[in-house]
Amino acid sequence: MHTPTAAMLVIGDEILSGRTRDSNMHYLAGALTGHGIALVEARMVSDDHAGIVRHVRELSGAVDHVFTSGGIGPTHDDITAEAVAEAMGVTCGIRDDARAILQAHYNRSGQVLNQARLRMARIPDGASLIDNPISAAPGFTLGNVHVLAGVPTIFETMLASILPTLTGGPPMLSQSLRVERGEGDIAGPLGALAEANPEVSIGSYPFHQNAIHGSHLVVRSQDGAAVDRVMAALRNLFPEAT
Amino acid sequence: MHTPTAAMLVIGDEILSGRTRDSNMHYLAGALTGHGIALVEARMVSDDHAGIVRHVRELSGAVDHVFTSGGIGPTHDDITAEAVAEAMGVTCGIRDDARAILQAHYNRSGQVLNQARLRMARIPDGASLIDNPISAAPGFTLGNVHVLAGVPTIFETMLASILPTLTGGPPMLSQSLRVERGEGDIAGPLGALAEANPEVSIGSYPFHQNAIHGSHLVVRSQDGAAVDRVMAALRNLFPEAT
Repeated sequence: MHTPTAAMLVIGDEILSGRTRDSNMHYLAGALTGHGIALVEARMVSDDHAGIVRHVRELSGAVDHVFTSGGIGPTHDDITAEAVAEAMGVTCGIRDDARAILQAHYNRSGQVLNQARLRMARIPDGASLIDNPISAAPGFTLGNVHVLAGVPTIFETMLASILPTLTGGPPMLSQSLRVERGEGDIAGPLGALAEANPEVSIGSYPFHQNAIHGSHLVVRSQDGAAVDRVMAALRNLFPEAT
Repeated sequence: MHTPTAAMLVIGDEILSGRTRDSNMHYLAGALTGHGIALVEARMVSDDHAGIVRHVRELSGAVDHVFTSGGIGPTHDDITAEAVAEAMGVTCGIRDDARAILQAHYNRSGQVLNQARLRMARIPDGASLIDNPISAAPGFTLGNVHVLAGVPTIFETMLASILPTLTGGPPMLSQSLRVERGEGDIAGPLGALAEANPEVSIGSYPFHQNAIHGSHLVVRSQDGAAVDRVMAALRNLFPEAT
């Protein structure tokens, strides 16, 4: 069975300047892995219209799903909706359904739906809205591009509402072992095992901790029996591993 | 004066699967900003030879400096050196200078420079080595591509040794204000101020904290007087800001 692929576009100058440390990519990676969708690439890019258009086009043509975060608020530097619309060849304006959602939200809170807030009702033609139970301003899905908020709690909530609607493949299964030996000591037999078992991927992630040099070995496959078999072989190779 | 540009390529399946949360991109972003180099894009990609070759070529042609992290250890999944060599059109093999560094290191620690460890002496033709005082295996610079380790402490040490050798532009200066009002309330005057002061970039980064909805406003420019002037205007607009 085909495992759907995904890419992420993290949009925001604050990420590239080092002011803010993105957490949405790591969250998305874990959520997609659990859902049987393979995240194959992530890009972090600046608040630049032409750049966002180009990246959305490239990624949208290369994978099954593109997820974006950031740039859908009310301020002048929130330019994601227009850029995604242009990338996908549709127009973008204030949409009545999104305006109604915002109007109801601000009525409840006694605030005014001013010109700035109305920017959050800019939704590309043909996009379907993604619910935002936290601050109302919706995300949207246009073609295979899912446009989510940058604030992590809102990003995560929006993702929770669309992920169940996306078809996943068999989830990627993984098991790991901790070996307190330097990678140079284990790399030979590890490489041979990886070559003999192409149906699994074997990763080695070194750590240096309290003067111990070791490695976490991770075996991944959609085939649980294959993971079990290779893990048993690893335990034979490295009996001291935990 | 021209501000040099940079891009980052974070290499590793473990990042995209959600197993590991990358920290090198955020570290690099801050270090480059302080050095007057603008990080304009970061990509996180998997341990795939053809993919790495393509990304290195694209980024190397687009910016002044490319930094990579990951994939230069001794195990079978460490394939960065060959991929960068191919991207830049040179060959890659065990190099005597790198082998001598490793040999001295393993002699000191009483370990054997076996076939696996020797993989860490694979360095592209014409590359200059980057010192690794922690675990000896060097990184390298080839053309405008700087290949660093993935382990954060080693990445940071390698960066510290090459960054002073790179020419930076005037550093980007920034000041920020915390406003405890929703973005929708401040976006109008903020956008007008941004339009009237194109020599600075003004970012608005919303937060939701303890039931307070507010925003951090960040003013950035290489022109310190312009930052001061716009900050004063912001304090006039939002006198309650801190």
